[in-house]
Amino acid sequence: MTAGTTPIFGKIAFIGIGLIGGSIARVVRRDGIAGEIAISTRRVETLNRARELGLGDTYSLDPAEAVRDADCVILCAPVGSSGAIAEAIAPALKQGAIVSDVGSVKGDVVRQMQPHIPAGVHFIPAHPVAGTEQSGPDAGFPDLFKGRWCIITPPEGADEAATARMVAFWQACGSKIEVMTPEHHDMVLAITSHIPHLIAYNIVGTAAHLEEVTASEVIKFSAGGFRDFTRIAASDPTMWRDVFLHNKEAVIEMLGRFIEDLFALQRAIRFGEGDELFDLFTRTRAIRRSIIDVGQDTDAPDFGRQKA
Amino acid sequence: MTAGTTPIFGKIAFIGIGLIGGSIARVVRRDGIAGEIAISTRRVETLNRARELGLGDTYSLDPAEAVRDADCVILCAPVGSSGAIAEAIAPALKQGAIVSDVGSVKGDVVRQMQPHIPAGVHFIPAHPVAGTEQSGPDAGFPDLFKGRWCIITPPEGADEAATARMVAFWQACGSKIEVMTPEHHDMVLAITSHIPHLIAYNIVGTAAHLEEVTASEVIKFSAGGFRDFTRIAASDPTMWRDVFLHNKEAVIEMLGRFIEDLFALQRAIRFGEGDELFDLFTRTRAIRRSIIDVGQDTDAPDFGRQKA
Repeated sequence: MTAGTTPIFGKIAFIGIGLIGGSIARVVRRDGIAGEIAISTRRVETLNRARELGLGDTYSLDPAEAVRDADCVILCAPVGSSGAIAEAIAPALKQGAIVSDVGSVKGDVVRQMQPHIPAGVHFIPAHPVAGTEQSGPDAGFPDLFKGRWCIITPPEGADEAATARMVAFWQACGSKIEVMTPEHHDMVLAITSHIPHLIAYNIVGTAAHLEEVTASEVIKFSAGGFRDFTRIAASDPTMWRDVFLHNKEAVIEMLGRFIEDLFALQRAIRFGEGDELFDLFTRTRAIRRSIIDVGQDTDAPDFGRQKA
Repeated sequence: MTAGTTPIFGKIAFIGIGLIGGSIARVVRRDGIAGEIAISTRRVETLNRARELGLGDTYSLDPAEAVRDADCVILCAPVGSSGAIAEAIAPALKQGAIVSDVGSVKGDVVRQMQPHIPAGVHFIPAHPVAGTEQSGPDAGFPDLFKGRWCIITPPEGADEAATARMVAFWQACGSKIEVMTPEHHDMVLAITSHIPHLIAYNIVGTAAHLEEVTASEVIKFSAGGFRDFTRIAASDPTMWRDVFLHNKEAVIEMLGRFIEDLFALQRAIRFGEGDELFDLFTRTRAIRRSIIDVGQDTDAPDFGRQKA
């Protein structure tokens, strides 16, 4: 979508305006995807910052006020607050409006929000699979979603026209679209995102508590691989606490698989089974190749950070 | 060191010319750090490629021939071959020469090589903590070591002048220097490099074998965190097989700590202990900050790869 085409929504409201909300607001404004942008946040500091950055047209600490007359409402807050926000905005929602979100967890968000959605309002959850390790309204940028996938998880019986409109919205934001059930989403994201974050947080924690190796040594020699984990482990603590608490079953299931495989690898090291190690390390290279081939990363030698 | 100053060595020989050897050869040539560069490799294809790239002055498949008259010999091959190479070159080493290496493991390399080093030859192992996920002579570049640490691990009783010369050499290559024992090195690198690689290889392997989630889904939605692990898990399989087999004790020790912490985290998720998760995720952010503060990474939002 380019500037000047018909907007997909008249008024859009964001509840929460961090990295993701701030990025959507920027691309919506730049490309004319909605006519008017309302922003509501819990903290006054964040709201003031969003106003300074000019991310919206109207600003309110009351989410119900922000969603009044909105054609689309997108929750961009930590998933633990989804139910409370849905309850707060419910009475103010316009008939025919679409309520959506950007949470990294979908099954639990549907369970929290669905009971509060009034008849005649469409509930179409979504999850743009994009981000950086930074957070807050300043961290957003309009091209965050470009070429990235957005997963739409319409609950059973969701209105098809409303789903199609959310698909069109996310395509206008630059995303590629996949539609799946909330439950399947939570399994896919557990392995592609939640477990990677969990083990990154974990190893950074382990490294900080060693008696044999000082924190200063860990920091100095982090270029050997550890550094890339710290980037992931710098992600927003509130958001990630909520992800683990609200996708508990899938995370524990996938973590079990990860640990089982790790023990097999430990055993191979202990008994000097070099061929087994070599085979695994060769197969993982091929998966990397596929990710580059489908355009989800480049093969620039980023790990070393020395070449431009 | 800039071009035109006195070289630190007359003739330098590289046994193996992959990412690391190829990068040293390039900076040595560019900045006149040695007068003559001899290259030896096991495979004729690699040697031919090094010749095409113009990385050296002389080329030989016989390592003994390459080291003849060399003032400095650097092994840049997988650590599993260190002992055999030391044995092969020993008779051809010049009196007063320095033998070094670039292996990611030091205790075991000292045990493999030390017995073969002739009297009157100095053995000063080193480990430049720098790299990318790519390998082979084409992957090297002269600035790989710039601002990165190089750990020098002189065995007990090593000649001080020889150690000082290796320090000067690595400083000329752009490195910052730390001197420690081989045993301490192996503990530090186990946590900052070996375990990060092991868990990256492991999660990529786990993801490839799930019944619930297809490989295509893992690849599509890798931008949620998984992608960064695949970069690390694309590192050279032979090199990493050797690292794990030859730093077995420290790796198993550190892996035990990692798994212990991971179980505590799993338990916190299971019992919904949000404060414990939040506290850990906040502390890990501070470690990230320290790594940026000491210049071992930048705070550009690389994880998202969208900003320049």
